[in-house]
Amino acid sequence: MENNKILVVGGDNRLAYLAESLIADKNEVTTFGLEKSNLDNKYKSNSLTQALKKSDYVVLCIPVSRDNKTIYSPFSDTVIPIDQGLFDKLKNKIIFCGLKDKLFNINSSFKKLNIIDYAANEEFLLKNAALTAEGAISILIKEYKNCLFNSNCLISGYGRIGKILAHKLSLIGAKVTILARNKESLLWAEIMGYNTLDLNNLNNSFDNYDIIVNTVPYLIFDKKILNSFKKKPYMLDLASVPGGIDFKEAKKLDICVNHALGIPSEFSPKAASDIIKNIIYKNLT
Amino acid sequence: MENNKILVVGGDNRLAYLAESLIADKNEVTTFGLEKSNLDNKYKSNSLTQALKKSDYVVLCIPVSRDNKTIYSPFSDTVIPIDQGLFDKLKNKIIFCGLKDKLFNINSSFKKLNIIDYAANEEFLLKNAALTAEGAISILIKEYKNCLFNSNCLISGYGRIGKILAHKLSLIGAKVTILARNKESLLWAEIMGYNTLDLNNLNNSFDNYDIIVNTVPYLIFDKKILNSFKKKPYMLDLASVPGGIDFKEAKKLDICVNHALGIPSEFSPKAASDIIKNIIYKNLT
Amino acid sequence: MENNKILVVGGDNRLAYLAESLIADKNEVTTFGLEKSNLDNKYKSNSLTQALKKSDYVVLCIPVSRDNKTIYSPFSDTVIPIDQGLFDKLKNKIIFCGLKDKLFNINSSFKKLNIIDYAANEEFLLKNAALTAEGAISILIKEYKNCLFNSNCLISGYGRIGKILAHKLSLIGAKVTILARNKESLLWAEIMGYNTLDLNNLNNSFDNYDIIVNTVPYLIFDKKILNSFKKKPYMLDLASVPGGIDFKEAKKLDICVNHALGIPSEFSPKAASDIIKNIIYKNLT
Amino acid sequence: MENNKILVVGGDNRLAYLAESLIADKNEVTTFGLEKSNLDNKYKSNSLTQALKKSDYVVLCIPVSRDNKTIYSPFSDTVIPIDQGLFDKLKNKIIFCGLKDKLFNINSSFKKLNIIDYAANEEFLLKNAALTAEGAISILIKEYKNCLFNSNCLISGYGRIGKILAHKLSLIGAKVTILARNKESLLWAEIMGYNTLDLNNLNNSFDNYDIIVNTVPYLIFDKKILNSFKKKPYMLDLASVPGGIDFKEAKKLDICVNHALGIPSEFSPKAASDIIKNIIYKNLT
Repeated sequence: MENNKILVVGGDNRLAYLAESLIADKNEVTTFGLEKSNLDNKYKSNSLTQALKKSDYVVLCIPVSRDNKTIYSPFSDTVIPIDQGLFDKLKNKIIFCGLKDKLFNINSSFKKLNIIDYAANEEFLLKNAALTAEGAISILIKEYKNCLFNSNCLISGYGRIGKILAHKLSLIGAKVTILARNKESLLWAEIMGYNTLDLNNLNNSFDNYDIIVNTVPYLIFDKKILNSFKKKPYMLDLASVPGGIDFKEAKKLDICVNHALGIPSEFSPKAASDIIKNIIYKNLT
Repeated sequence: MENNKILVVGGDNRLAYLAESLIADKNEVTTFGLEKSNLDNKYKSNSLTQALKKSDYVVLCIPVSRDNKTIYSPFSDTVIPIDQGLFDKLKNKIIFCGLKDKLFNINSSFKKLNIIDYAANEEFLLKNAALTAEGAISILIKEYKNCLFNSNCLISGYGRIGKILAHKLSLIGAKVTILARNKESLLWAEIMGYNTLDLNNLNNSFDNYDIIVNTVPYLIFDKKILNSFKKKPYMLDLASVPGGIDFKEAKKLDICVNHALGIPSEFSPKAASDIIKNIIYKNLT
Repeated sequence: MENNKILVVGGDNRLAYLAESLIADKNEVTTFGLEKSNLDNKYKSNSLTQALKKSDYVVLCIPVSRDNKTIYSPFSDTVIPIDQGLFDKLKNKIIFCGLKDKLFNINSSFKKLNIIDYAANEEFLLKNAALTAEGAISILIKEYKNCLFNSNCLISGYGRIGKILAHKLSLIGAKVTILARNKESLLWAEIMGYNTLDLNNLNNSFDNYDIIVNTVPYLIFDKKILNSFKKKPYMLDLASVPGGIDFKEAKKLDICVNHALGIPSEFSPKAASDIIKNIIYKNLT
Repeated sequence: MENNKILVVGGDNRLAYLAESLIADKNEVTTFGLEKSNLDNKYKSNSLTQALKKSDYVVLCIPVSRDNKTIYSPFSDTVIPIDQGLFDKLKNKIIFCGLKDKLFNINSSFKKLNIIDYAANEEFLLKNAALTAEGAISILIKEYKNCLFNSNCLISGYGRIGKILAHKLSLIGAKVTILARNKESLLWAEIMGYNTLDLNNLNNSFDNYDIIVNTVPYLIFDKKILNSFKKKPYMLDLASVPGGIDFKEAKKLDICVNHALGIPSEFSPKAASDIIKNIIYKNLT
């Protein structure tokens, strides 16, 4: 994949690494809004208009915006509003972004642009789940005061992240229990050698876990369950906002809870950018 | 193991957790020099003399001192000199400490005390190696910018830490190569499924590792080897001072190196204190 | 689960073990058509009519018949025709059998009986898949002339058996490649650390496998593919009849092929019978 | 390793595979005493004298003899006595054999020959241990009537075979307990995640194992221990004659015992021959 003219606009660590990797592959890369990143200055433009002239493709970050007004660009002091001006500049380009619906909610005219959502596919979701699972292990080792080896870990949810995390945790010596509602998930968890806990049939079973990791994006660990704990676990919530834990109640009970978001960008920015790069390349061919 | 009268003197996180755990087991615990730790105040004494009156056993930390003059006590403003005064106070007690030779080098009269070195046995060494391996995984996930999964990891040394780290790293998906000199170590590494690199026979082979972890406590990665790298790895040195890497040269070559010491206390203080507690208990029976 | 009056009729090793296990659980068990099994004689009846009088439940084997006329009963010389006489005897009983549609094809009036198909659920399928995977490992170690450790194994299909077999094979040191058509399966296989081969896009890639295990129940390894092998692999077909390999062509090419059926009964008869027992018990409550 | 003139004399499957592999590597291979093997006839000689004329190296099997009189040659009707005649023929050759002391016990004048014992090194022992562990898994899956997954397996001994077998068994889902006498072995077993049983301190603990594998070459499972079992396990003895089980008593107690010898030759003849070949090659350079 060489010689593509690509402009990277804004974004965090993940997009800085993406630019670097596109450069290493010998594409013609320009960036705008990454001026404080470690990239070589010759790849940094200070005019979006100029930069767009030299580019066929534009890459935006995920999510595109955090304030619902401007492009998320923590490595820059320049404000890039998501407005008619930006729309006009992007009109004849092929644009890659993540979670495009969020962009359309900010400015619906952007629907008319030629946008490819790199996050709207199983590859993006699954590979980021793998990075999240790996990062979660790092967090657990660091923050849990005992060791993972021989610890009793409850994982709530047996989707992408739950499966991969259970696999890795058990292989490094944790005793894994899967909490799930779906019968087939519980059967698979049993076959993989994990203990299981049926969410349909709990009976105050939450008492002897050292660690609880939630991956389910709705309230599982409510007031009642948190109060049924006989031992205070270390709790890690990996689910996107609002997460699956009643954080207020947990705090009241003095249970240590960490709601960790954006793990791939923080723990594996290079790998996280490669996921995006590969999806972009598949769309360039 | 109940009702033993134990005084914990100074020490870091690991000794604070030890005190807590001894208390939970219903021993009569006093501490001196841990006043800024999270322990309940009723267990904190501000007179070493008073505290010793109530105690049969005294636990000191590992290493006993960092300045070769006073007891290491980061949770305290009180200075506890390793002098004749301390010697006199400890005379009729049974004392547990780690690396007692270090203490004797500071003040040889301490040899006359009744001292049990909790670190001078295979159990202490092996279980701390396991905690070090686990902590190393956390560091690698956090600091290596790509992901461990499918990364090429070279581990230098196949002793306690090397074996355990190789085992865990490969199970979570890294491709492990063992660098060792001993033929039997290389054979075992091969049988366990790792690649091997014979330190007796190198031929500039250090070119394609993403991660290099050293566990050997003498210089392995010298100027020549560091300069033979074709790709800059992330390097983690787990060996005790002076480590096995020419840090100065690595810095010059812009290779990222982390010399991580005291991992058990930092990443698993509770587990680290349990290792000491169990050895103490075996000596109390 | 005690004191249930259960009659076991015919069947192979798996049903003999089932009878034994039901007895151990203190049920009132009679058998008919298992006279040559190792069961204690006091549990063997030589009159089906008598035996039925004492029973509320009847358990038949899976498949019920192999000749499409009589109950499969390799441990017996008695012939038990699937006819009106049998139908009348079973009329007021609760009957457990596997693959009931096969029974109905033989004699459609049996549809009027009160039949519970213990094989028609995910639990039966998944747990038997796990036993099949385990048995397959035994076969591979025994029949492949080299060792599994470091061997290149291609597994065709990533369903229940494929997933479990890949997991176990790779953990004991084989290098696993998954051949599949489904994109999501290929992604998961990659995430689990296996190599992948896309069935939609083969390009004569079948050349360097030491072992090929098929789990897909339709022709995958046809004349063309078999002839493209540059190296003769050991081939094991685990798919139900007709399997996924052109056996005739394989024989012509002098490729060693084993079509292994009924692995759970042969390699783990006790575990295979427990799967049925647990499903029966769930239906008794 | 090409063009070496090698004569293979007698031997079982392992030596037949060795001859084949030496041929594939383009050595000039002759065999004597392998006439019923699958080797191409052109490599079979019917005159030892003739065959020796064409050869610089002679390979004998391991053990060289089973009757303490003649070369072990199950693939041949020719008797090859270990006598003065053979000695004279071998005088000017370089000879490879396994367990040369056994040969010298039969005829001490053979000490004067130029003999290299391919079995007298760690590589041979360790790699054969790995093959033995793999074969043992095949046997256990086949002969134990339940499944290995979730079974309670006791492994007696934590040497080469014990370590490798424990590693593989636990990874495919068995719950492994190590029985050993050595403290360091018990510590390592614990660190690897196995349960441990201290042979110095048994207290009738042998009651709830499904499977017991012995690897210790002296009597461990004596009358007393066998009689203390509350549950009959499946027992596999991998130790060389006389093994570690009181077979007579086990039979009396109706405990199923299998004393499996020569596993590498039976389950992995190709791999077993490659171990010998590699050691021969190292001695040719």
